[in-house]
Amino acid sequence: MNGAQSLLQTFVDAGLEVCFANPGTSEMHFVAALDSQDGMRSILGLFEGVVTGAADGYARMAGKPACTLLHLGPGLANGLANLHNARRARSPVVNVVGEHATYHRGLDAPLTSHIEGFASPVSGWTRVSESADTVAADAADAICAAMTPPGQVATLILPADTAWNDANGAATPLPPPEPTPAERAGIESAIAALKSGEPCTLLMNGLGVTEAGLRLASQIHQATDARFLGDTFIARVARGVGRVELPRLPYFAEQAEQLLEGTRHLILVDTKAPVSFFAYPGKASELTPDGCTVHTLSQPGEDALAALTEVAEAVGAVSFAPIVGELRDPGLPKGAISPENIAQVVGALLPEQAIIVNEAATSGFAMPALTEGAQPHDWLDLTGGAIGMGLPAATGAAVACPDRRVVSLQADGSGMYTLQALWTQARENLDITTVVFANRKYAILQVEFMRVGAHNPGRKAMDMMELNRPDLDWVALAQGMGVPAMRATSAEQFAAAFGKSIATPGPYLIEAVV
Amino acid sequence: MNGAQSLLQTFVDAGLEVCFANPGTSEMHFVAALDSQDGMRSILGLFEGVVTGAADGYARMAGKPACTLLHLGPGLANGLANLHNARRARSPVVNVVGEHATYHRGLDAPLTSHIEGFASPVSGWTRVSESADTVAADAADAICAAMTPPGQVATLILPADTAWNDANGAATPLPPPEPTPAERAGIESAIAALKSGEPCTLLMNGLGVTEAGLRLASQIHQATDARFLGDTFIARVARGVGRVELPRLPYFAEQAEQLLEGTRHLILVDTKAPVSFFAYPGKASELTPDGCTVHTLSQPGEDALAALTEVAEAVGAVSFAPIVGELRDPGLPKGAISPENIAQVVGALLPEQAIIVNEAATSGFAMPALTEGAQPHDWLDLTGGAIGMGLPAATGAAVACPDRRVVSLQADGSGMYTLQALWTQARENLDITTVVFANRKYAILQVEFMRVGAHNPGRKAMDMMELNRPDLDWVALAQGMGVPAMRATSAEQFAAAFGKSIATPGPYLIEAVV
Repeated sequence: MNGAQSLLQTFVDAGLEVCFANPGTSEMHFVAALDSQDGMRSILGLFEGVVTGAADGYARMAGKPACTLLHLGPGLANGLANLHNARRARSPVVNVVGEHATYHRGLDAPLTSHIEGFASPVSGWTRVSESADTVAADAADAICAAMTPPGQVATLILPADTAWNDANGAATPLPPPEPTPAERAGIESAIAALKSGEPCTLLMNGLGVTEAGLRLASQIHQATDARFLGDTFIARVARGVGRVELPRLPYFAEQAEQLLEGTRHLILVDTKAPVSFFAYPGKASELTPDGCTVHTLSQPGEDALAALTEVAEAVGAVSFAPIVGELRDPGLPKGAISPENIAQVVGALLPEQAIIVNEAATSGFAMPALTEGAQPHDWLDLTGGAIGMGLPAATGAAVACPDRRVVSLQADGSGMYTLQALWTQARENLDITTVVFANRKYAILQVEFMRVGAHNPGRKAMDMMELNRPDLDWVALAQGMGVPAMRATSAEQFAAAFGKSIATPGPYLIEAVV
Repeated sequence: MNGAQSLLQTFVDAGLEVCFANPGTSEMHFVAALDSQDGMRSILGLFEGVVTGAADGYARMAGKPACTLLHLGPGLANGLANLHNARRARSPVVNVVGEHATYHRGLDAPLTSHIEGFASPVSGWTRVSESADTVAADAADAICAAMTPPGQVATLILPADTAWNDANGAATPLPPPEPTPAERAGIESAIAALKSGEPCTLLMNGLGVTEAGLRLASQIHQATDARFLGDTFIARVARGVGRVELPRLPYFAEQAEQLLEGTRHLILVDTKAPVSFFAYPGKASELTPDGCTVHTLSQPGEDALAALTEVAEAVGAVSFAPIVGELRDPGLPKGAISPENIAQVVGALLPEQAIIVNEAATSGFAMPALTEGAQPHDWLDLTGGAIGMGLPAATGAAVACPDRRVVSLQADGSGMYTLQALWTQARENLDITTVVFANRKYAILQVEFMRVGAHNPGRKAMDMMELNRPDLDWVALAQGMGVPAMRATSAEQFAAAFGKSIATPGPYLIEAVV
């Protein structure tokens, strides 16, 4: 057994099942090990941003890491943006990054780069394997690091000789660490605030916005009148019929400030105090209202559910039945296509247990309200703001949940960053319905241009925010990668195509010209 | 004048003319300044790897930097692979990376990341602007750093408030540094070696492989019998009729070793001693023959042309006329399409002063020999091994040289990394003929798999190296981004399409199914 085989066997023994890969020469022994060791499914991405974004989407739905296989520093570099998103989603991901052989690293061959330098900003754990004998233990440590609550990116750099030299065999998997208990002081101050009769808001993320967490929040709300809110961007939230509805903190800072106004106690559940997404001239970056006390009920990595349970008991909330959503069918719209009536169709036709991956940006504004009353589903956001997460994350989510339909809501601008994901969707015949909102501009920038105080954009500025001249043809792009596609210009066309797609196995793309 | 305007004005005053951009919210004041300050052409790329690769191609042809405009850490991250290539090409590039406002940086908003960490591995110079007052001077320093011979990547990180606050105006451009003289000891030892009568090889790159450098090498060869060779990968080399032919060090280490065998003196001209591209089990990584003395005539950043001139004078070479190539028309082939007859067509039809951008990988093996006797042209290689350089670099080269036809020779596997470049080619109506070699596999990996000692790939391993299931349709992909395209399956079809394309303004793509 060589180092690569010991690595792969350790992964399989620890329960890893999927590798998203874009390998090169330095990773060929790992690739060979895919056939010699049973149990690992390897899925090729034609660009590394696809690979890492898929690992993020997979982890969010599977609750455990996939591994990635990346080629040296540049391969990792191409995957960094979606690893940034995975870091913000607290997704467990185990990267295996091939490297030149130990004795070759110092020779400055063309592909040599400072891989640890690229890895550190996105990784909670980084290690360079020193020899074939240590690779298996390194692999076990990497998985354990990735699974350490709340989840993080672990990057193992694998010099080629540590893969091809003889090794001692697989390592015994380590037990995944449990969340630590939340601090007593935070629990007690949250309880005191909730009992004070003063206006309280629970701001929630992570474990707090699981189905169980939301039920506890609803109980606490009924007992105390405390409001609960979700962060603006959440890695995964349970929604739809039978689930507790979660209002969210708005993206625009002034709207968020307005919503939080009057709150005297902000109680943080698996998150931190809110800040604006960007800075704007003359506006506050920190959104906690003046005079509001911040209580940390639980930090990321702590057991938010136990803390919420304790709070619910202390405030007498356990006798309340959580208020859950009922079916609200928005009906099927008619007429010219628009972001609103696309949302209406999705809300009306969304199949049970669907997974919505949302990178619709400005075109998705109507989607939350119109899908809230749909069949029970999970909703995955872009957590780190690094656009190009949608199509890859949809790919990974579909791999994790082969029995569920993935609905990939994709703005056209961000979709172009990692459009290669469509090919992987075709190769693996994944049940993904992609809706591309083709507004042919970076609409958010046209808004933000004004908001940062740069008014009246001239021609050159507009050229940086418009995606026309020429228009992108998403039907051609999808078909070029083997995904059947159509263009919808009316609500009826869109509804027919969407309905057909969710009933038909395999991927499909609808370009909605909005 | 705000900080962004002072930055842009300083760039323009220093002679920068082109910005390749993919901006976001934090760069909106820079975008606004494009209209308020005259003289900067801004070109949108739909992915940052396009932006940075275009800046590399532009710099190689223009001999001066373009600036890039990138959005925060993830935007830079998406551009790192082609900045790695630019670093290896020693291309002057000035990156402007937007960042959160200084007072917002510490708040850990979703898009916050350690930008300097991402930048350092590829940048020879990195700075974070501290205030609007310092931005202009930072810009002047960045250009000067980028232009410091032999050329490097300079990265200026621009917090949003340093862009939007009032500034003192533009900074006076700094004179670009000149190459330093090569060290006397190296020149003298090279002269002594060349006079020794023992077998000598000049290994050349950079200034050594300019038209002037190659003429000097040819003269020295005739006077001394010394052989001259180019590195395997070269940022830019002058070729074709009237130019001195430059044999190249082969990619495969054993072939390179064989070629260097018997050399007693290896004389380095603007390069370093050769090492193999990858390590292979049981094979040497350093390729200098045993018993061979290495002489450094000039290092990168030194004046190789002055050093070569001094050597030529010392060995009595100046009276020799350089041996230059004559027109060798390979004629037009017939029959089924193949990498060989594609090379034949390119050799036969290449227009004068064309620019060949070569990322053809294994499909390009016949191209050097069959274009050596073509009309005078420049040839640009993938220098850093980070695939996805071809289409972007062709884009940048075409912007730099609007009167010249760019022939972009592109393997299908690597082409998929940055295919978004085609859209920019369409928008800017650039004279680029792209030839995609559609062999539908990572052919180099099938070779390397065996060479690293991993024999008999199984089904899973083969799946990581084959790009079929489904086949990519490059005609659809190109048309989807506004570039007209056709598929060629015979040599005649290919020759007709290639001939028509080089005579027709604007971009065109030919998918050659090989």
